[in-house]
Amino acid sequence: LIAPEIPPAGELVDLPADERRHLFRVCRARSGETATVTDGAGRIARVTVEGQGAGARVRVEGVREVPRGASAWICAGAPEGNRADWLIEKLAELGVERFVPIDCRRARWSRGAGRAARWSRLGDAGLRQSRRAWRMEIGEPIGIEQLVASIPREAHRVLADPKGEGSPISGSTKDRLHVAVIGPAPGLDPGEADGLIASGWTPVRLSAGVLRTETACLAWAALWARGDSI
Amino acid sequence: LIAPEIPPAGELVDLPADERRHLFRVCRARSGETATVTDGAGRIARVTVEGQGAGARVRVEGVREVPRGASAWICAGAPEGNRADWLIEKLAELGVERFVPIDCRRARWSRGAGRAARWSRLGDAGLRQSRRAWRMEIGEPIGIEQLVASIPREAHRVLADPKGEGSPISGSTKDRLHVAVIGPAPGLDPGEADGLIASGWTPVRLSAGVLRTETACLAWAALWARGDSI
Repeated sequence: LIAPEIPPAGELVDLPADERRHLFRVCRARSGETATVTDGAGRIARVTVEGQGAGARVRVEGVREVPRGASAWICAGAPEGNRADWLIEKLAELGVERFVPIDCRRARWSRGAGRAARWSRLGDAGLRQSRRAWRMEIGEPIGIEQLVASIPREAHRVLADPKGEGSPISGSTKDRLHVAVIGPAPGLDPGEADGLIASGWTPVRLSAGVLRTETACLAWAALWARGDSI
Repeated sequence: LIAPEIPPAGELVDLPADERRHLFRVCRARSGETATVTDGAGRIARVTVEGQGAGARVRVEGVREVPRGASAWICAGAPEGNRADWLIEKLAELGVERFVPIDCRRARWSRGAGRAARWSRLGDAGLRQSRRAWRMEIGEPIGIEQLVASIPREAHRVLADPKGEGSPISGSTKDRLHVAVIGPAPGLDPGEADGLIASGWTPVRLSAGVLRTETACLAWAALWARGDSI
């Protein structure tokens, strides 16, 4: 479950309406049963259900703080159609810290009205599923120059490229930020790719074949999520 | 492009109607332009377009045979809803050799009428995208006992398990068949998991969080597709 705030042990949790519905209608929780609630910002509470029906309440038994741990950011061009929607859920499940949509010369992200809310819901679905304590941050679309300027110099930076030869994950994932750029469906243009390489990004190959944008994002996140140096 | 048969150099290719549509309507190929056609069984032809309109033909310039190479099989329980559909496309993109749906105690695959045809189309979409020469084989649902009996003893066999500690990909992917079992959405029952472990399957963890069935399939395929010992 997800709640905006986790109070101290002994107090009641104020669950949003859709979380209450999930707990009592979908999971059919009864008085005395336990569950876990996170605020998506590092706190996880063990809670107990008290009472039933409309008056049922959820009381905190104990709270633990989960450190942020390893961090991965994915910066991606626009895939075809609505393929980004399931991507958001999957990256949240795999524990990616931040998703940055990048506008490229050959493809810009559409500025659909409901997108931020929809992605937020999908990210929460991934958070709930994976039982993590940290919500994935989802940025607004930015240009490549702005992206390059915003990445810490000490991060391990890679660029997905079917002809690349570098290592997708270099060194331990535990003590370092790992950042991947994945081109849009029609690819980066050569100038964009060369610019990234000149700025210290390493071209890496994720598969023997050519992957779609969303598949490459997921493949890299899976390599990172394995949690070891590869 | 995909065609059921690749004739020798100099001869014409008999393209299925939907492949002709893709070549001439979607890609707007013109006389003199080249493309590649595979039969999904290891042959790739370089072809040239001759003529235009309804009478346009496609002639083979040269053919090469691509060896099967590294092999990965994914044996998966049923995910929620229609989440298997995009999974099929993604696994084909990543170059998985065979997808085996397994019926488990807690979840059986639905026997929808159009499923085989739909999966075949999605597998072909993944093949076309990744520009490989081998089509992913898609099995009919089988039980776990039948599965265990059908896997070669020398294969590296793993079972996705959030508590596992083994290596998802052990040794080179090049000289060995790698097979993964991923449980259905409600999980394997403990007897099923214990049975696999007793039969020599190693429990492996793919992520610090708990992954959905389809995410775990994709994560393992991405680790395998990276092509090196991990």
